[in-house]
Amino acid sequence: MESKKALILFSGGLDSTTVLHHALSENYECIALTIDYNQRHKFEIESSKRYLKELNIESKIFKIDLTQIGGSALTDNKIDVPVKCNDGIPITYVPARNTIFLSIASAYAEKLALENIFIGVNQIDFSGYPDCRPEYIKSFEETINLGTKLGAEDGRLIINTPLINMSKKDIIKYGCSLGIDYSLTVSCYNLDDQGRACGSCDSCEFRRHGFELAGIKDPTHYKN
Amino acid sequence: MESKKALILFSGGLDSTTVLHHALSENYECIALTIDYNQRHKFEIESSKRYLKELNIESKIFKIDLTQIGGSALTDNKIDVPVKCNDGIPITYVPARNTIFLSIASAYAEKLALENIFIGVNQIDFSGYPDCRPEYIKSFEETINLGTKLGAEDGRLIINTPLINMSKKDIIKYGCSLGIDYSLTVSCYNLDDQGRACGSCDSCEFRRHGFELAGIKDPTHYKN
Repeated sequence: MESKKALILFSGGLDSTTVLHHALSENYECIALTIDYNQRHKFEIESSKRYLKELNIESKIFKIDLTQIGGSALTDNKIDVPVKCNDGIPITYVPARNTIFLSIASAYAEKLALENIFIGVNQIDFSGYPDCRPEYIKSFEETINLGTKLGAEDGRLIINTPLINMSKKDIIKYGCSLGIDYSLTVSCYNLDDQGRACGSCDSCEFRRHGFELAGIKDPTHYKN
Repeated sequence: MESKKALILFSGGLDSTTVLHHALSENYECIALTIDYNQRHKFEIESSKRYLKELNIESKIFKIDLTQIGGSALTDNKIDVPVKCNDGIPITYVPARNTIFLSIASAYAEKLALENIFIGVNQIDFSGYPDCRPEYIKSFEETINLGTKLGAEDGRLIINTPLINMSKKDIIKYGCSLGIDYSLTVSCYNLDDQGRACGSCDSCEFRRHGFELAGIKDPTHYKN
C-alpha cells in the first residue's frame, strides 16, 4: 500500500504547527486530527480550526472528555496550572495522554487506510512527560502494529516524530524557514478569555525562551 | 507501592464477567471500568450496570464515541453485523479498540494509583482480532510503562489476561465453578430491543458452542 497521505495530530500549538508544515513540505497530503479532550485551554481548539481552514487543510475533531478521568491540571479545574516547573513530572502531565491520542489517531488512520501519523513530541525542551520520549514512541509503534488489522495484515503504521531531537530554538528556526506565522499558534496552558498567553506556565516558558535563543521576535500575545 | 486493588475492563459479557469473578476470587478489591463507546450493542451497558450494582462493585463508565471514527459493524450503523465468520479479521473488528480501551484504563489506573488492570481477551475461541493476542498485550504493557508517570517513576502497570489461553468451553466451566450466573451476561453484537441474543453473530456462535462443549445448559435468551 503506497500512500502520500498523512494524519497529523494537530493542537494548533507551536510544535504541531511546525510538524504540519514539515509534512506539507515533504509533499504529504495532510489530514489534521485535533483532539478536543475538554482541556482547560479550549481556546486552542478554536484557534486550530481557524488555522486549518485558512490553509485549506482537511481536518477532523475527535471529542474525548478526559475530565472523566482528571488527575492533571489540564483536565481537572480544581488543580491549578503551576507557574514554575518543578523537578520531576509536573501536574500538567495528563495520564496516558499520548497513548490515548495515538491510539485514536491509529484507529482513524486505519479507517482512512493511511500509513503515516505525525506527532510533534520532542524530548529536549519539554516538561519531562514520559510519553514524549523516543523509546516510548518506538514502543507504541510496535504495539499498534501488533494490535491493528492494518499492522496484522499487509500494512504498517508509522509514527513520525520529526521534532523529537530538536530544541525549541531549532524548532522555531526551522518553522520560520518554512514560512510559519507563529503569531497564529497557541502554546499557553492558561490563556485568558481574550486568548492571551499567561507568559509563566511551563509551555509559555519554553516558547518564550525558544524565541529568545533563536534571536527571533516572539509574536505571542502575552497578557503581561 | 503495594495494592490489592484492581481495575477490571468490564463489558458485562461472558469473558469480562469471568475475569471480574476471577479477580474477586484472588482477593482483589475490584473497580469495574465500562467503556461506553456508542456501540451498536448498547444494551450491554445497562446490563453491566445492573450486574455490578447487584454485586456492589464500584464502577465507572467512561464515554468515548467511536462512531466518530466508524470503520466497523459495531460503530457504524451503515455496516451490518455479519451472520457468519469469514476468513481473516471480520468487519466487527473496531480499529485499535483494545489500544484505546487499555490506554483509557491505564490513565484511570494511574489516577487511582492502581497497578493491576484485568482484561478478558482470549486468543483461542475468538474472532481473529489482532488486539486479543498475547504478543500484543505484552507489547502494550511495555509501551504504557514507558509512557506513564507511574511506569517512569516507581510503579508498574500490569495488564492481567487470565483467560488468554483458555477456550470458551474452559472459560465457561471455570466461571461456573466460581458461581457465575451467565444468564445475566450479554455477548451478542446484535441484540433485539428486548435484549434477546440473535444466536447467529460471531459472538453468539462462540458462546453457544462453548456451552455445548462444556456440557452446560446455555442460559442465554436467544431470539430463535
